[in-house]
Amino acid sequence: MFNLKVDKMDVEKKFFSNISSRERAIFEGAISMGALFHQFIGTPVNESSLPSLETAIEKSLLLQPAIEKVNVRIDLAKLKDEMSEFGYVSLSGDMLDVKIWSKIDDVSAIIRMKFIEELNYPLMFIEDIIQ
Amino acid sequence: MFNLKVDKMDVEKKFFSNISSRERAIFEGAISMGALFHQFIGTPVNESSLPSLETAIEKSLLLQPAIEKVNVRIDLAKLKDEMSEFGYVSLSGDMLDVKIWSKIDDVSAIIRMKFIEELNYPLMFIEDIIQ
Amino acid sequence: MFNLKVDKMDVEKKFFSNISSRERAIFEGAISMGALFHQFIGTPVNESSLPSLETAIEKSLLLQPAIEKVNVRIDLAKLKDEMSEFGYVSLSGDMLDVKIWSKIDDVSAIIRMKFIEELNYPLMFIEDIIQ
Amino acid sequence: MFNLKVDKMDVEKKFFSNISSRERAIFEGAISMGALFHQFIGTPVNESSLPSLETAIEKSLLLQPAIEKVNVRIDLAKLKDEMSEFGYVSLSGDMLDVKIWSKIDDVSAIIRMKFIEELNYPLMFIEDIIQ
Repeated sequence: MFNLKVDKMDVEKKFFSNISSRERAIFEGAISMGALFHQFIGTPVNESSLPSLETAIEKSLLLQPAIEKVNVRIDLAKLKDEMSEFGYVSLSGDMLDVKIWSKIDDVSAIIRMKFIEELNYPLMFIEDIIQ
Repeated sequence: MFNLKVDKMDVEKKFFSNISSRERAIFEGAISMGALFHQFIGTPVNESSLPSLETAIEKSLLLQPAIEKVNVRIDLAKLKDEMSEFGYVSLSGDMLDVKIWSKIDDVSAIIRMKFIEELNYPLMFIEDIIQ
Repeated sequence: MFNLKVDKMDVEKKFFSNISSRERAIFEGAISMGALFHQFIGTPVNESSLPSLETAIEKSLLLQPAIEKVNVRIDLAKLKDEMSEFGYVSLSGDMLDVKIWSKIDDVSAIIRMKFIEELNYPLMFIEDIIQ
Repeated sequence: MFNLKVDKMDVEKKFFSNISSRERAIFEGAISMGALFHQFIGTPVNESSLPSLETAIEKSLLLQPAIEKVNVRIDLAKLKDEMSEFGYVSLSGDMLDVKIWSKIDDVSAIIRMKFIEELNYPLMFIEDIIQ
């Protein structure tokens, strides 16, 4: 394999010197939120499989660059509202409430996805930036 | 690369001699229907992007083994019903009506996916088998 | 919600009377195998997240009609071979070895997906049918 | 439906007043790049279906907030290198070169995804910001 330390420092210098730490924290958190939605929407889920799905989503997204913490909550009440005759549903955006913490140097961004009823849309926004 | 003809015949003998042509037509069509649903659910879509998405889905699924024809119809009325404030929606199972034709030897299976309101479920079933 | 028992029997009669129990076991198992591949390919994974991903895949596919057991094995050696500088990879077909058991009445089908090097392809086939 | 103009202005004020136009251009472009990768990786593709897939990816991502232009190039040489015996492959990150232009007010960000051989990784970075 590669010499991890050196190459990663080269990557920072070569590809990310045009933005601030704050901007890169936003950038990496936003990528992971887009990834999460489009990777897992459609997954079969019900009450019994919900905890394992939340865990797998969290653990997979944690692997992406700069991601420090991921919190996925699937809304059980909405899941039950949309229940099919076959005892499960396809995971959809209106069931998800997600927070992703990304960190570059001393800047942490908290990216949030939350379904906003008035917009009928799973809005992604920046909940907080701590620096 | 490989000698396509010979290897494909070997595959048939080695892996599919335990089922009939009718069973394999069902098998291959069903794989492609499951693939279609879970690959494309969640894709951003609205009225303007709908034709290109239908075409891309059809052309990609046509590549899979035994698939002879794919017909994807995204229900524009349902799409509009679920429209978000941002002018598009995530493709969901209740908008889809799909037919996949698979053929092995002289047996053709027509696999259908259709949202059944009473089940609140995008049911996949076999519409017809012609032999 | 619905009267589960009655409606499910109606579904059987209305939509699946044109095929045998053996054919439907093949049909449902094949749908789930196609679903599994296209839902989870691309998921970030490494050695530490692998068990939770295997578990989530198994539990989600178990929800689909007729599925009795799902066994997902992600090949750790291949995962390591394809490792990126960022310490994880995107799940790909060559890392997966999957068995899905589907059952209709007294017929059980074992559907298998296995990467076949000579074909450079994650082949889906029927490993066994027990009736 | 909704009163589009008013609600969208409310969204800006309520959810995005904590970041600059430059930061939001980065944010929205990054979301769409993460979305693109995880929505379409795994799609069956070969030389004949490639143009329709590129078009569908571009048109679907264009629908997302702030996205002004999307350019998707699937590397035909790599696609052919990885060709399976069945005449197609699953779309993977090493075949993709993508540019997404996002714009908020008078700031445009160009987000790029490009496979970097030395990292064995489809790196997402900010190619340029014009303001």
